[in-house]
Order: sequence, then C-alpha cells, then structure tokens
Amino acid sequence: MDEPDFFINKNQGVAIVGLGLIGGSIAGALKINGFKNIMGIDTQNKAIEDAINKDFIKLGDTEPENILPLAEIVIVCLYPKETAEFIKKHMKDFKYKAVITDVSGIKLDLINEINSCLRADLEFVGGHPMAGSHFRGFDHANPHLFMDANYIITPTDTSSLEAISKIKSLAKILGCKSISEINPGKHDEAMALASHMPHITALALMDMCDVREMGALLGPSFKDATRVAQINSRLWAQLLISNKENLDEQIKIMEKKMEQLRKAIISSDIKELEHLMEQAGSKRRKIG
Amino acid sequence: MDEPDFFINKNQGVAIVGLGLIGGSIAGALKINGFKNIMGIDTQNKAIEDAINKDFIKLGDTEPENILPLAEIVIVCLYPKETAEFIKKHMKDFKYKAVITDVSGIKLDLINEINSCLRADLEFVGGHPMAGSHFRGFDHANPHLFMDANYIITPTDTSSLEAISKIKSLAKILGCKSISEINPGKHDEAMALASHMPHITALALMDMCDVREMGALLGPSFKDATRVAQINSRLWAQLLISNKENLDEQIKIMEKKMEQLRKAIISSDIKELEHLMEQAGSKRRKIG
Repeated sequence: MDEPDFFINKNQGVAIVGLGLIGGSIAGALKINGFKNIMGIDTQNKAIEDAINKDFIKLGDTEPENILPLAEIVIVCLYPKETAEFIKKHMKDFKYKAVITDVSGIKLDLINEINSCLRADLEFVGGHPMAGSHFRGFDHANPHLFMDANYIITPTDTSSLEAISKIKSLAKILGCKSISEINPGKHDEAMALASHMPHITALALMDMCDVREMGALLGPSFKDATRVAQINSRLWAQLLISNKENLDEQIKIMEKKMEQLRKAIISSDIKELEHLMEQAGSKRRKIG
Repeated sequence: MDEPDFFINKNQGVAIVGLGLIGGSIAGALKINGFKNIMGIDTQNKAIEDAINKDFIKLGDTEPENILPLAEIVIVCLYPKETAEFIKKHMKDFKYKAVITDVSGIKLDLINEINSCLRADLEFVGGHPMAGSHFRGFDHANPHLFMDANYIITPTDTSSLEAISKIKSLAKILGCKSISEINPGKHDEAMALASHMPHITALALMDMCDVREMGALLGPSFKDATRVAQINSRLWAQLLISNKENLDEQIKIMEKKMEQLRKAIISSDIKELEHLMEQAGSKRRKIG
C-alpha cells in the first residue's frame, strides 16, 4: 500500500497549464531545483517550443489530454475564469488522485465553482504567489521571480493535510519566504486591500495625470505609486469584478480616509496630520 | 566692469544652509565635481564636523554671519517655513549680489514672502530637486542622489536671466536629467498631483492596514504604493498645509475617480474597466 506523500518530489510528473510569465517562471524554478518531469500545456505552440528550448519543460503539448494523464501535480497558471473553465473541461483527463492548484489572485468563487464539480479522487488546493510583473508572456519568465515572495495557500474544510503539504512544499521550492494558510473568503477580503487597492489608486492617479504636461515634473513617489497601472486589463477586470463586495467596502473606507486627510489639510490641523503621519510611518516600517 | 556671470563656477563661494539629507547630498555632489569653496551652515556641530571629515565642505559654522558674507551662491536646504525665516533673519549677512535658492517642495507663498522683503541687490530663484529618500540627516547624504532626477526651477517675472542660468547650471552639475522652468503657482499646482497625492494615498492605505494581520499577505504593489508613508511628519505637514487649495481640489478629483472605478466594479462593467486600465497603462508607460 502507498504511504501518504506529503511533499512533491523531483520525479513526479508536474504539469503547468499556461506558460506565461507565472507558469513559465514556475517551470524554470522547478527546473533549477532538479525536477525531472516538468510538462507544459499552452494554446500557443511558440510558448511550448520556447520552454523546451530553454529546458524549462521536458514535454509540452497544446492538447491537455496528452499531458494531464501523466501528472501527479497540476499547476493551472491561467486567468481566474479560464482556470475554472479549464479544470471543468478536462475533468476526465486528470491522473487518478492528482493534486491541482492555481495561482489566481482571487479565490472564493473560483474554488467553490471548482469544488462543486471536482472528481471525487482529485483534490484542488488554491495557491497565490504574491509576485508578478507588469510584463507578461513566457519571454519574461524568470526562475527567481518568487524568491523571498509571500505565498498564500487557501485550503477549505475538506482539504487533506497531504494535499496542503504538497502545495506548501511547492511554494518552498519556488523560494518563497513566508507561506500563509487562510480560507478562500479571508484571502479575498485581505487581497482587496493588499493588492487590489494599490492597483485602484494607481489607476486613479494615472487617470488624473496629463502626461504631456507633467512628464518632467514627476518624482519617484508618483512613479512608484503608479507602476502597477501598467496593467493586464483583461486579467485585472476579472480580478476586481470577482472581488466586488470587498472592494466596494475598501474603496468607501479609502474615500473616508482621504476625506479625513483633506479636512485636516484645509483646516491646517498640523497636530492631526503629524499624528496620522507618525502612525502610518511606524506601521509602514514594520512591513519592510 | 564685471561681465554678467551665467554659470556657477568652481571657485565661487557656495554656502549650503542645513546639512541634512538634501544639503549634505548637494555638498557631496559639488565636491566630486571639483568645487573648491563649499561651505556649510547648520545648527548642529556634529553635522558640520561630519561634512568636514567627509571633505564635502571646506568650512562650516553654526553662526550664519561667519559664512554668508563669503558666498556668491546660497542654497537653503531647510523646511519651507524655516527657509523663509532664515533668509529674513540673516538678510544683512548675505554677500552683495548673492544669488539665493532653496530646495523646498512648495513655492508660491514661500517665494512671495521672501521676495516681499529681499534686499535690492540680492536675488532669490526657487529650486526643487525631485529626489529624496525616507531617510533623513547627513548620515544618509549621497552625492549621487540627484543623478537623472527632475529639477524644477521657479523664477518669477522679476528674475534675471543671469540668476536663472546660475541655478540651472547648478542642477546640471548635480546630475539632473530634466530641468524645467515654471512659475511658482504652476509648480504648486503640479506638485499637488505629482508629489503630494502619492503621499496622501500612501498614508490612507497604511491607515487602512492592520499590519499584524496583513504582514505576510502583502505583495510588491502595496509596498511600492506605501513606501513614502515613511514620512518626515514635521516637513510634510508643512508641505501639505502650504498647498491646501490645490490639494483640496486634487483629493476631491481622486475621490471622484475612485467612485467611478467602484461603480464600474460593482456593476461588473468589464468594458469600462478595461478601457480605464488601457488608458492608464498607456499613459504610465510614457513616463518611464
């Protein structure tokens, strides 16, 4: 009888679905960590060829049914909607007892949708590497992309310790520094502030900026605050809309905070401003 | 008779008032560019000693009257309020026909205040190097701080071509990439968006964040967006309050933009969101 297996191992078949920035970077990270059976699935022949040429994958195919039956671990690196669609469409092709994970920045609805129709022998454990870039595509894949990043794993009540441990060991292999476990709903609530709000403020600031007039007047604070406005619009429209309840609340809170600052400024309330700044500064120094 | 002098030159006496991060960095930049008569004024003996030990200045004193009579160029690197106070208090000590500049992030009220009482032979031309750090003090002074930064010069109708050119040549020597000339009012209007708003969004985001709960869930977008929340509260309370009319307007505009995004999100308006993101992304890519 098989012993339960708590770690992914270098001889297991690992299939990566979608060889873009994230999928390609995961393939590269596994490769430099000695994994021997990394496989890739992509709709584009070019991405597969590039990944094989770079030796990031051993085997690749545009037809999932040629790869999925060989993989103990499947990492779906597609947009949220496409992630659910892919798993549902290819349900019959997954290897018996495979563990499936994803890299999506939104979790609750996606995981409910997948778990509601998952084959009984399979397990899905959501994952979210907190790394990325405003570049996209395999050309920008970088095996060190996840080095020292935060990785969030979002098991549900039905997740087995075995499957959770496997995805944790994957995150460690990718080089992540801090690996957290929270439930999918809490994940989405936290991401509204930790990831979606900085994108919303970046979009709002850019929308306010006449680039032709302001170009030579911008300093590093504006550039840092708007870097992520270089956004993948199809992905991010999906992410923000999938998290609409939490964002509705967070945007309203932010508007209140800005009103509080505006009132302190127009009433020349130095004491209140210095207090707000000292609090914010002390909190910011804690997150490094 | 003297020829008009359009450049600062390496043998001129240059006095730097305030040997903090900015003043110290300017002293260092002039030093490595071969300036021979760099002088420093600071209330702290320690800063003067450190600057002399690092060979950034030739001469330093806590008493301005011992230095100002020797300087053709005076660069006041104090907070806005202190800048005006210093110049008014030491008006009698400046060398005949000295050119004075500053580094303050706010200009209109400050320049009006200075020009309303400036000795007839002196000239004040405002300057604003768009560089900095959340560190402060001479210990963090860096001669390369201004490399490739933007520098804004804010002459008024009465500024002479000679004085403007001198401050421009100073900005070039510091290593600045783009040197703009705009009037003090336009400067403050532009800074409300280009510099003050990214600080306000950083403060608001940090104020919303429970660091203990969120620490391991934060990604690079949140960290970049809040870097400047590590703020010098005394300086920034002055800056924001001095620019209250422009900020009142900019904060209200930002609140409207955020409302527009919130409505598009809660109504699942993919088309509107993708349009906003593509516009913002295309503008952001232009500013580098």
